[in-house]
Amino acid sequence: MKDFINLSHGAGGKEMHELIKSFNFSNRAQWQDYDDDSSTLDIGNNKRLVFTTDSFTINPIFFPGGDIGHIAFCGTVNDLAVLGAVPLGLSLSLVIEEGFSVKDLKKIINSINLLSKKTSVPIVTGDTKVMEKNKIDKIIINTSGVGIINDNELLTKKIKTGDKVIISGGIGEHAVALLSKRFDYKTSIITDSKPLVEEIQAVKDIIKIAKDITRGGLAANLNEISEKNKIGVLLDEEAIPVKKEVKKLSEMLGINLYELASEGRFICIASPENAESVEKRLKLFNKQASIIGTITENNKLIIQTILGKRILPMPIGRIIPRIC
Amino acid sequence: MKDFINLSHGAGGKEMHELIKSFNFSNRAQWQDYDDDSSTLDIGNNKRLVFTTDSFTINPIFFPGGDIGHIAFCGTVNDLAVLGAVPLGLSLSLVIEEGFSVKDLKKIINSINLLSKKTSVPIVTGDTKVMEKNKIDKIIINTSGVGIINDNELLTKKIKTGDKVIISGGIGEHAVALLSKRFDYKTSIITDSKPLVEEIQAVKDIIKIAKDITRGGLAANLNEISEKNKIGVLLDEEAIPVKKEVKKLSEMLGINLYELASEGRFICIASPENAESVEKRLKLFNKQASIIGTITENNKLIIQTILGKRILPMPIGRIIPRIC
Repeated sequence: MKDFINLSHGAGGKEMHELIKSFNFSNRAQWQDYDDDSSTLDIGNNKRLVFTTDSFTINPIFFPGGDIGHIAFCGTVNDLAVLGAVPLGLSLSLVIEEGFSVKDLKKIINSINLLSKKTSVPIVTGDTKVMEKNKIDKIIINTSGVGIINDNELLTKKIKTGDKVIISGGIGEHAVALLSKRFDYKTSIITDSKPLVEEIQAVKDIIKIAKDITRGGLAANLNEISEKNKIGVLLDEEAIPVKKEVKKLSEMLGINLYELASEGRFICIASPENAESVEKRLKLFNKQASIIGTITENNKLIIQTILGKRILPMPIGRIIPRIC
Repeated sequence: MKDFINLSHGAGGKEMHELIKSFNFSNRAQWQDYDDDSSTLDIGNNKRLVFTTDSFTINPIFFPGGDIGHIAFCGTVNDLAVLGAVPLGLSLSLVIEEGFSVKDLKKIINSINLLSKKTSVPIVTGDTKVMEKNKIDKIIINTSGVGIINDNELLTKKIKTGDKVIISGGIGEHAVALLSKRFDYKTSIITDSKPLVEEIQAVKDIIKIAKDITRGGLAANLNEISEKNKIGVLLDEEAIPVKKEVKKLSEMLGINLYELASEGRFICIASPENAESVEKRLKLFNKQASIIGTITENNKLIIQTILGKRILPMPIGRIIPRIC
């Protein structure tokens, strides 16, 4: 471990996971965590409480198709949704820079209120702090969330060789929308940020696990699944949906397409018998939903390209800071 | 509402409450909030889920007797404890400045781990973000927490005229410890920050409500209780426990003693018949625990001093920023 924190420690890749492991939080009692994003507790009657948290440090705070409030609401709702839970309520904690525009704050709160009404997930508790000018960059938002789920509906089912990986839509649109604003580059791409509850509920009876694609993109999230479940994944590059402009911008910026964050896409894994039904149901929400890969035995994330197979490693280094 | 956010909007006083009201979060479904700090949800079988959140922006992050990790753990545990709940688990979300010392981070995490072991309240989920140098002042921590409580144990019982107000120990020690470090002033006072679960559990059968004293001190918290319950409070200044050095420092700094934050003290309200038992039980934890006032009819917080009675208003203005 180095002596000082650097941007890579907050980027969702290898360095962050090592830092968190070093914290050595033991003593989790009856809680079970299935990934780094949420934890569940047996509360009797075959039900589990699901609990998750996320802090959002996005730059810029307004970008094509969304703002920090939109991301903060969807990010936490989605961490509950991917376990199969219907979110019951969110907390909202604001840390604001002195001198921040009340009008901008109201716009952010309005994004949250609209999503809250649309999804029927209320903001139920909160906190507000203000820091002196230049002691914080504009605004940081934390949302935490709780849900309750029946034991047998929990999306933590065992994955097997031969199972299929399905993605709910095109990759990288959030990252490209945000970066285009950050670098003042014109694009028609808008963030993909959205609540995933409906989509996941629509397929939960025929999928084994689901994972929203955030920091570190497909590369980080599929590597996490691979490590956790001690399985490999063979991706078919041709099948991965991506808009032309997203691909072009990732090349221009020199960023690996598969490390670009989405905020309204998830991957799920289903048996070969169910994979096509999953794809079909997800296409009702997004035409780009596709089967993109197969679970293998070799413990590695490998991508089949027209030039041959190559390993897609867990992202290392800063990736892109402050994207979510 | 002014056009720009200022420090008073995050200080726990009148401006903050007005800002939050303007957010207009409706749609709370079955959730009930008893104060601004936490919310509860009926989960069947005569049980309620309790949920709370807090972001900590303390300056300085290390101070006599504690650090930001200590405060972050206790603050959220105490928001659950004052409703009578035994906390089940906390989330921990870190937003760290690039270049922050890993050694200091480990000290903060160690404070949290020690408290977690001591109280058997695990850290069950988390998030880590890093912001560029000078885009955030060192570190901000959010802790959210969940607990479950039996309906009939919830400390939201009806307060009546004649009920007594009891405090669990001397006021203002946290604020004085923190400010003495901020202003490089020597003092023997250390923060009062501590988990209040045991103390509250020890009296929960004979008290009606409890409230931890944080931002805005006794003045803010008793005014909140007064407004919420449409009752008044008559405080006896002579009975309010305060260490000499705390009083001296509050005078030196020109800060109203009753607006100084504590992080390990609570006030509770009990019937006149139970008040002495409450005081007696609380004295086992802290000799300064005392009956300090009486519930009245007049909807105002009034303090009886040796010079006569005066109103103690809801704090207005910046109070003291970044104290918790």
